[in-house]
Amino acid sequence: MTVKTMNESEEIIEKLKTIGKDTLKEINDGKSPSLNIIQRSLNNVYFDKETGLIMLGDKQQKRTYFNINQAKKFMQTLLVTKQIKWILEQNQPALSTRQLYYTLKHSIPGTRENTFDDQQTESDPIIEDVEVMVDALREQLKLIATPNGVIAGALTVKESTGETLDYSKMGSAGGAIPPIVEKGAFEFKSCTADFVLVVEKYAVWNLLNQQKYWKNANCILMTGKGQPARSERRLLHRLSHDLKLPVYIFTDLDPWGYYIYSVYKQGSINLAFFSEKAGCPNAKYIGFSTKDVTDYEIPKSAHIKLNDLDLKRIKEISGYDWFKKPEWQKELSNLKKLGVKVEQDALVAKSIEFTAKEYLPNKLEEKDFLN
Amino acid sequence: MTVKTMNESEEIIEKLKTIGKDTLKEINDGKSPSLNIIQRSLNNVYFDKETGLIMLGDKQQKRTYFNINQAKKFMQTLLVTKQIKWILEQNQPALSTRQLYYTLKHSIPGTRENTFDDQQTESDPIIEDVEVMVDALREQLKLIATPNGVIAGALTVKESTGETLDYSKMGSAGGAIPPIVEKGAFEFKSCTADFVLVVEKYAVWNLLNQQKYWKNANCILMTGKGQPARSERRLLHRLSHDLKLPVYIFTDLDPWGYYIYSVYKQGSINLAFFSEKAGCPNAKYIGFSTKDVTDYEIPKSAHIKLNDLDLKRIKEISGYDWFKKPEWQKELSNLKKLGVKVEQDALVAKSIEFTAKEYLPNKLEEKDFLN
Repeated sequence: MTVKTMNESEEIIEKLKTIGKDTLKEINDGKSPSLNIIQRSLNNVYFDKETGLIMLGDKQQKRTYFNINQAKKFMQTLLVTKQIKWILEQNQPALSTRQLYYTLKHSIPGTRENTFDDQQTESDPIIEDVEVMVDALREQLKLIATPNGVIAGALTVKESTGETLDYSKMGSAGGAIPPIVEKGAFEFKSCTADFVLVVEKYAVWNLLNQQKYWKNANCILMTGKGQPARSERRLLHRLSHDLKLPVYIFTDLDPWGYYIYSVYKQGSINLAFFSEKAGCPNAKYIGFSTKDVTDYEIPKSAHIKLNDLDLKRIKEISGYDWFKKPEWQKELSNLKKLGVKVEQDALVAKSIEFTAKEYLPNKLEEKDFLN
Repeated sequence: MTVKTMNESEEIIEKLKTIGKDTLKEINDGKSPSLNIIQRSLNNVYFDKETGLIMLGDKQQKRTYFNINQAKKFMQTLLVTKQIKWILEQNQPALSTRQLYYTLKHSIPGTRENTFDDQQTESDPIIEDVEVMVDALREQLKLIATPNGVIAGALTVKESTGETLDYSKMGSAGGAIPPIVEKGAFEFKSCTADFVLVVEKYAVWNLLNQQKYWKNANCILMTGKGQPARSERRLLHRLSHDLKLPVYIFTDLDPWGYYIYSVYKQGSINLAFFSEKAGCPNAKYIGFSTKDVTDYEIPKSAHIKLNDLDLKRIKEISGYDWFKKPEWQKELSNLKKLGVKVEQDALVAKSIEFTAKEYLPNKLEEKDFLN
């Protein structure tokens, strides 16, 4: 006899049903229906030193129907939960948050009001509320963001659609990272890679891929093309968390590169709930770092003078709790002293093989990372 | 006995060598060395009605060494040709134009001058000059731009690296379009699809991919994620030109959507040389068009009022030679009259199946296109 257990999607449907049932009960009891919503504002976000992640606190607020300021938002919240329940129950395809908005936007009969008038200020924040209410990522609610990244390496994945994807056989383009990389939809089947190397820029990923760096170093080579989208972050989390692979982040030497590293590692403030589930607190910064400029004798032709925006950003980042570690405070102050930034693309100024054959192998061999 | 013919790369190397030899001869003959460069300015770009493409004329200008205004540019041109010749001869990996810039930038011994100080104003335009001089795309010179698009469908490709890619087995992400899709590097092996459908937005591509639209309609489903990058345009050209597949472009109903269609079809002014080799003059506009709004009873919730920018852009586009056809002039004037735009994402307001099950099959069945 097999015991039937609820799968993830059924669990979420149950939670969504409970929201509806509770509301109905309040109505039947003659009470003003209300929902408890975790606050997602700055004053409920904090950096947790123990986990090394940017996290959401537990401050709640009530969203009540019989309140002139909250009635519309209350109705919108129920509409979003209803629609997500329908999508999951009917096994409908995943939608973008803009598509969800369009499925819900309509005029309310007998009034001149629309259910929704704007996506970014109305439906998107409510989707984030619902994510927190049911403790699930929007991808688990079958809502997607556009992914941009690609990967290559000794990893095979089985998708729920039946397809098996082998990321060591994706050729010159690498494998496109799909919008949903959640368990169930996207199951790791085998992985013989030793670590993950994330590079900031596509041009550098492309050069390393042509040089078969991932094959020689036995790693998974990934890029999010600059600031990563959601599914790149979530995939990296799963490679780090589920497969226990060490993760190294390789960016430009500039405050923007440092920040990209921190988003992969600790997450970001404005998506704190996602940060908890997408962060990689064990990720290490392989470079490019200030000491590399002298250690590897980077030619002056690759230096770019820091501009005012860079200096302002260095100051901002220095103030973030997750950059308060002494080694990062030192790195930030060294960058200011150095007065120049170096793009990772610029390392071809040394030689076209330099990154693959000298820089990365040395840094890994010497465990020369920032943490 | 097999006769050894020159391959494409060898032909380009020969042309590059000839540039060098001619220059050397001029020097040995005591003349001022000079190069003939096809002008890429607006006054040498025109819309060719016969081919239906935006093309480059044949106006030339001389770039001379013994000319104080041209000496540096002359030197830079020789540096770029030298470097490309080296990359091709040595079978070096393909680089981004930024990486090429960094390999060439250095201080000139005995002076305070650098060979190059800026990529966008110095090395990039020269790369375009060299493309025209040797009649080859920069991708054939092993210089890449970052691609963004994905495809799915019954197409298999053999890459020069040995990998065979089957775009009907790429799962939920589809296949990433590589930066180089040139013959030799990226050879079509088999294709049983009947046509290519290009959709503007990733969210719509993703929905259609989940609904297996490409399987049911037997097409290749592609997106360039908005305004396409170079390799999406070049791939579409090859699917249209080499495989003789009909091409349909599906965009938002707004002037920006129309323009994306025109870039795929006729090319663009600022990359006229590329337009000739990347255009698809037979491509048809499947929608979304003004008459579709009434034909398919698109609900008001999906309408967005045209703003000033939209109206300005409608006016601009109306003036372009390649929008002068009566049917396009009428469409542009109808859009202005309609006063609203409709995003392709918004069609889920009809139903989640509407695009795949009703709209696209009807439009194809009735051959209801703009041309």
